[in-house]
Amino acid sequence: MIILVTGFEPFTPHKVNPTEELARALDGHRVGDAVVRSAVLPVHHAEATPRVRELLERVRPDAILHLGLAGGRARLAVERVAVNVMDYAVPDNAGCVKSDEPCVVSGPVAYFATLPVRAIVDRMVAAGIPAYVSDTAGTYLCNQTLYTTLHALAGHTTCPRVGFIHVPLLPAMVAATGVDAPSMDLPLMRRGVEIALDVIAAG
Amino acid sequence: MIILVTGFEPFTPHKVNPTEELARALDGHRVGDAVVRSAVLPVHHAEATPRVRELLERVRPDAILHLGLAGGRARLAVERVAVNVMDYAVPDNAGCVKSDEPCVVSGPVAYFATLPVRAIVDRMVAAGIPAYVSDTAGTYLCNQTLYTTLHALAGHTTCPRVGFIHVPLLPAMVAATGVDAPSMDLPLMRRGVEIALDVIAAG
Amino acid sequence: MIILVTGFEPFTPHKVNPTEELARALDGHRVGDAVVRSAVLPVHHAEATPRVRELLERVRPDAILHLGLAGGRARLAVERVAVNVMDYAVPDNAGCVKSDEPCVVSGPVAYFATLPVRAIVDRMVAAGIPAYVSDTAGTYLCNQTLYTTLHALAGHTTCPRVGFIHVPLLPAMVAATGVDAPSMDLPLMRRGVEIALDVIAAG
Amino acid sequence: MIILVTGFEPFTPHKVNPTEELARALDGHRVGDAVVRSAVLPVHHAEATPRVRELLERVRPDAILHLGLAGGRARLAVERVAVNVMDYAVPDNAGCVKSDEPCVVSGPVAYFATLPVRAIVDRMVAAGIPAYVSDTAGTYLCNQTLYTTLHALAGHTTCPRVGFIHVPLLPAMVAATGVDAPSMDLPLMRRGVEIALDVIAAG
Repeated sequence: MIILVTGFEPFTPHKVNPTEELARALDGHRVGDAVVRSAVLPVHHAEATPRVRELLERVRPDAILHLGLAGGRARLAVERVAVNVMDYAVPDNAGCVKSDEPCVVSGPVAYFATLPVRAIVDRMVAAGIPAYVSDTAGTYLCNQTLYTTLHALAGHTTCPRVGFIHVPLLPAMVAATGVDAPSMDLPLMRRGVEIALDVIAAG
Repeated sequence: MIILVTGFEPFTPHKVNPTEELARALDGHRVGDAVVRSAVLPVHHAEATPRVRELLERVRPDAILHLGLAGGRARLAVERVAVNVMDYAVPDNAGCVKSDEPCVVSGPVAYFATLPVRAIVDRMVAAGIPAYVSDTAGTYLCNQTLYTTLHALAGHTTCPRVGFIHVPLLPAMVAATGVDAPSMDLPLMRRGVEIALDVIAAG
Repeated sequence: MIILVTGFEPFTPHKVNPTEELARALDGHRVGDAVVRSAVLPVHHAEATPRVRELLERVRPDAILHLGLAGGRARLAVERVAVNVMDYAVPDNAGCVKSDEPCVVSGPVAYFATLPVRAIVDRMVAAGIPAYVSDTAGTYLCNQTLYTTLHALAGHTTCPRVGFIHVPLLPAMVAATGVDAPSMDLPLMRRGVEIALDVIAAG
Repeated sequence: MIILVTGFEPFTPHKVNPTEELARALDGHRVGDAVVRSAVLPVHHAEATPRVRELLERVRPDAILHLGLAGGRARLAVERVAVNVMDYAVPDNAGCVKSDEPCVVSGPVAYFATLPVRAIVDRMVAAGIPAYVSDTAGTYLCNQTLYTTLHALAGHTTCPRVGFIHVPLLPAMVAATGVDAPSMDLPLMRRGVEIALDVIAAG
């Protein structure tokens, strides 16, 4: 069993992205019979989706766990749904902004994540890790990626399950900016993601 | 050189208190020539202050760092000032509430902490630990303890420097309650407190 | 042209609901050729939807604006999307809780609101009223109502447009609880809703 | 009986200041035998205090209520204490920043406000207006003004009582910036301030 874990590269206004570090660190990680393959996606509205498609074909994963950064959140956010909207005023790494555009023209309004969202959150919380089921993945690249991956796999009879976890800012990111924002340390994030991988591997 | 570090026992509605763990873990910790002696204070309006006085006489510290828990805060809060007020509606561990009473009848309105607050925060932030100079230690036992320790030492010619650091909730405390609140992991808190001890020992 | 405006009755832990007051106050309100008909919905998972259906048949509105209360929000939230999920731990007025259930079994994952969400927000903001496009209507009765109204009308060739606005707590609700939460005064809410009605009537 | 009410002029990053409007609107306001005289203070570290001193000599008030703007706060904040610190990184209207400087060299650490803080808050809350006793007036011009007014009057046998109320952002200020922040409408602020004036006049 292969689990594809993706992180994102840094994006404005951040200089690092903990999901890049998490993805890199988890490459080769084993959970029972399952092994993790990881990749770092570009924060680019036109390139992230093709990059995932290429990974799906090459890696042929049994499950996909996308990771993304959500400044301001205090807990790990296991996303329940991806919506067919792109809407962001801070440019992505292609210098592009979007206003109320669809991820996929004529695509359905939304897809549910197909990983066991509730079971993942329950296991995280039981392990003492702040986590919740989130009802919005935003309208930036994170939501787009969850949407387009689910869209690419929709209708396939035996398709990999797909999910997304948003992580808070790292402590050093909060310290550097001086703003009063919640953070989570990388080892705790990693423990949370490993719990998600356990749940996924257990099937 | 002896640095007295105090934590508090748990208090309503919490079952644990990270400052108790921090204080216990740091007992005997060495920083250059300095050594830490630690104690855990009761969350009791009438017993915390006498307990500190007894420690001052027995331990004879060169510096005192009180630690306390502040649910809702996202960063280490190095307190600048203690005010002569007790005002809390959630009972302390003696079952007592207070409304706009002084910590010390006829005491001055406030005392400044005498540890180098700004230097401690700057060093924490430089190390990537979220921290700030706080302008209110609240009106609960934490503020009372900072106030009464400073009051006990006021006017002494060669007195130990005194300070207070508030820490956020632990991740497991947030997970257990299901509320959307910031947290900080114990190892990161400890790194922050050790930095404060470095600054104190060097000072 | 008839615009149906609905509010909700109070629900735990609240004793009043500003959307009930708004709905009642706007009954008969005229905007150009349009007239408002209003109703107050029960906060009851099994009765709210049939009540709306009955209103649709009786009132035959050209547009529907549902209003709901969202404690904790600071601005008027014009909802973009309704998701096929019911998930709430605080009982509705039927004493019922829900965990990850669909609003409509075998219904689509989500519907977009069909009112001009962006135009409404832009007009509110231009008038100095705090407002934003919200990407989650939650998973309580509010989301259910938006979802089931859109579901009831889906596929009809000439169907009324449908939208939902969440309002903050009233100042008196915040004052009564003593919590540190944002609020909005009723006259300002009403000005915001009237702007939405203007946009709808012009549309 | 004369009550002096002061507001402040706008300051970075704001273009208006509701306390300027409140002060102007309340000039001449009568409460029983009391009459309000109002003034607008410069947001200038060196000019605000002399301006208050000049007003004290000319108006000879029996009570002084300073008003100031505190972006981010959700409720009227009746300040309990002023601390002898100036510390702000955003320049005042003189282009000046301060780092851990005293308001008054060799002044006491803090002064308590001498208006009946608790009675004012209780009356506001009873009237349905969100309000609380605040334990920090910050370290900007607001705190400085409360401190220096109290300092100017300290030791006088029959001196006017002094207090400070912080108000939230206006709705239009939040709308204009697009940030997710609490606000309060001007009529509600005014009702709150009038309640404070009632308590002062009755006092």
